[in-house]
Amino acid sequence: MLNKVLIANRGEIAVRIIRALRELNIASVAVYSTADKDAQHVKEADEAICIGSAQPASSYLNMQNIVSAALLTGAQAIHPGYGFLSESDEFAQLCTECHLIFIGPSAQTIALMGNKANARITMQQNDVPVIPGSDGFVKDADEALVVAKKVGFPVMLKAAAGGGGKGIRKVYEPKDLKASFIQAQEEAQLSFGDSHMYLEKIISPAKHIEVQIMADQAGHVVALPERDCSLQRRQQKVLEETPCVAINEQERQHLQQLAIRAVQAIHYENVGTIEFLMDPDHHFYFMEMNTRIQVEHSITEEVAQVDLVQEQLKIASGLDLSMQQSDVQIHGHAIEARINAEDPKKNFQPQAGQVQQMAWPGGLGIRIESGIISGDTVSPFYDSMIIKIIASGPNRDLVLRRMLNALREFKITGITTNREFLMTLLQQKQVQQGGYLTTYIDREFLPAYLATDKELEAQHE
Amino acid sequence: MLNKVLIANRGEIAVRIIRALRELNIASVAVYSTADKDAQHVKEADEAICIGSAQPASSYLNMQNIVSAALLTGAQAIHPGYGFLSESDEFAQLCTECHLIFIGPSAQTIALMGNKANARITMQQNDVPVIPGSDGFVKDADEALVVAKKVGFPVMLKAAAGGGGKGIRKVYEPKDLKASFIQAQEEAQLSFGDSHMYLEKIISPAKHIEVQIMADQAGHVVALPERDCSLQRRQQKVLEETPCVAINEQERQHLQQLAIRAVQAIHYENVGTIEFLMDPDHHFYFMEMNTRIQVEHSITEEVAQVDLVQEQLKIASGLDLSMQQSDVQIHGHAIEARINAEDPKKNFQPQAGQVQQMAWPGGLGIRIESGIISGDTVSPFYDSMIIKIIASGPNRDLVLRRMLNALREFKITGITTNREFLMTLLQQKQVQQGGYLTTYIDREFLPAYLATDKELEAQHE
Repeated sequence: MLNKVLIANRGEIAVRIIRALRELNIASVAVYSTADKDAQHVKEADEAICIGSAQPASSYLNMQNIVSAALLTGAQAIHPGYGFLSESDEFAQLCTECHLIFIGPSAQTIALMGNKANARITMQQNDVPVIPGSDGFVKDADEALVVAKKVGFPVMLKAAAGGGGKGIRKVYEPKDLKASFIQAQEEAQLSFGDSHMYLEKIISPAKHIEVQIMADQAGHVVALPERDCSLQRRQQKVLEETPCVAINEQERQHLQQLAIRAVQAIHYENVGTIEFLMDPDHHFYFMEMNTRIQVEHSITEEVAQVDLVQEQLKIASGLDLSMQQSDVQIHGHAIEARINAEDPKKNFQPQAGQVQQMAWPGGLGIRIESGIISGDTVSPFYDSMIIKIIASGPNRDLVLRRMLNALREFKITGITTNREFLMTLLQQKQVQQGGYLTTYIDREFLPAYLATDKELEAQHE
Repeated sequence: MLNKVLIANRGEIAVRIIRALRELNIASVAVYSTADKDAQHVKEADEAICIGSAQPASSYLNMQNIVSAALLTGAQAIHPGYGFLSESDEFAQLCTECHLIFIGPSAQTIALMGNKANARITMQQNDVPVIPGSDGFVKDADEALVVAKKVGFPVMLKAAAGGGGKGIRKVYEPKDLKASFIQAQEEAQLSFGDSHMYLEKIISPAKHIEVQIMADQAGHVVALPERDCSLQRRQQKVLEETPCVAINEQERQHLQQLAIRAVQAIHYENVGTIEFLMDPDHHFYFMEMNTRIQVEHSITEEVAQVDLVQEQLKIASGLDLSMQQSDVQIHGHAIEARINAEDPKKNFQPQAGQVQQMAWPGGLGIRIESGIISGDTVSPFYDSMIIKIIASGPNRDLVLRRMLNALREFKITGITTNREFLMTLLQQKQVQQGGYLTTYIDREFLPAYLATDKELEAQHE
């Protein structure tokens, strides 16, 4: 087992990782920016080292400083958490070169899955269904049009080397395709120095269903019960739950088999998530793979009764997974709510400032993951997600009630959060019934919420 | 199912009950003393009604005012929690007379088990082993001496109608028996108007092991995995865990059978606890029955995966238990730590005052039950136990670490608590190994803690 690990992250995930390290009797090293000198992850770690100024580029994205901190403190490994450098193949490579264990898959695997076009091709080659589209690249607008007509509009043109929304165009009608293709390709060349393009049909509305996997160095792979992450605002997940009520047991098994096939195909190691879209006919399509721990991993821990961060550490230490596929069971239901420091009434503008009073909900089936306590400052430099509330219990109805009560009990002053937005959302019929799709918040809930929030609020007074 | 319940209690257990009511969609009515007008249980309940001044006798023990509050608010039932009126057969009887459901066993059952001599006789008659002693009463000192010599010294002389430490004498040698008997009997006559005496051998040191039971109106009885509550200071439980590592599976089954036999013998209804002592030879002896929910019920909820307060409400509503004996399993391990507002260095003197900053621990396997938040006032009128931390997980070693980490993370300013005492206790070899007995804290740990606390503290720096 490892004996000292540096956490290249901050906030709730850094605290989460420190707890797992303590439980495994592994020493922890926190890194922090000058803005985070009094942060919880700094206080909770065995050691802490400043790696730069508040701007992420100077600190939490500063590979050299992080690696230097690890070498200086004698850490054997680096846990990247999520966000920041967690999906940087360059960082994983740098760790390896410096004889540090990167707690995650290899740099090669990160690079392969990070390139969406390559990931798509790899999955196709291994019989994992991908979103209908081109077989590999499309060389020009004419070929794109042929493919688009075959798969049906609307379609998405995408830069193979893409990322960050660059080199991407949605096309709703054949007449718009040529111009969009040229624009996207030019943008791709400009942004990535690579003009390769591919094309996918747009599957929307859909269910966003993802499968958490674990894979150890000995090649054991376990796929865990799926998460329904369809409640999204502008592609950002808002509330997640597991299991997904919209699929049956046969579909669940099928999804897990697809995920295992994908993971085995790329000789994946550590934990990761395969994201799928499910269309109204219940066809599943590989969307992408996240080669890291995710924010919403906690709900899977509750229903599968496994500590995913401990598993990451065990895998990186060369140990076998602590469970086999045949051990996987669904123990009840779990839902996660992300408390963001943002103002939903002001276009979800991120909020910064000092948290004055804060009281967490408690009781049976309530778990809190937080990186802040009363008196701490929420910095404008980082993600606005400050606290996760995880409710779990024997059945979905109970867990929905439990979460609503937890949100009611949660008190915070000094900073605006999305607490009330989450409470209102949770009480909507679509959410209560579980049939919500990826477009639900943006197209249905949010317009109504912003227009008639007083009316919606009245429901829970 | 009931539709409105009054909670005749305060603090963490009142908040706990309110949460269960919400989850079952039952309206809640809080009662409060003038000292508690801003308390969490008052804020969280659907309705709240003042029942008197700060002194418990005027409010939380004021039967007439509580019953009036229930009738006034249209509550159908009263949940007594623990302490206060929870084991008052008079209160249970008054509820019945006022057509209110008392959430607990009948007044007759409470009275039967409340009288320790009668409880002992009842158990003997039903082949539940009791502590060696007299068969029923001893008529005088001579008979007491004969019995004492038979069972062996030391023995305890006890008033049959006893309670509150009155009419009780420990006797270590035959020569002291006669004088002690006469004193105790006189005290009994004076205190209770009843001079009946009985005698029991003193089983010490021992393990205090208790079995949580549930029994519905249809006569179904379930015994849950035992709790080891041997870590006590002056008979007050400090840390509890389940299961008990000192017994094997056969002994566990035997204990559960004894508990079921006891419950069936008295036609018990609702949840309750049979407390046993286990001597060094692993003989079990019935000690007493608690005819109510207990503080430490939460750890059983974690390992047995059942909501005991919801079960109480279902039983009182005439519903069947939600599980059968064959469903009972042990899911990992759980430990509870009681955070008391007290100063261990000053003879555990209760502390009152305003809590300034408070931060709860969180993360996987950590549950908090609390009746206060930052800014609340801890009153001198009530029990000093303010927060319970419950740690659970797949195995005992992990849970011990998890609890220690939770105690480390727990922050409170403005009031002194036993947090550091608990942390030190938790790290002792006897506690880590699980072999501790009822005398451990008072005779071994505490003298060393108070004498050389600096030395002990050094262990966890």
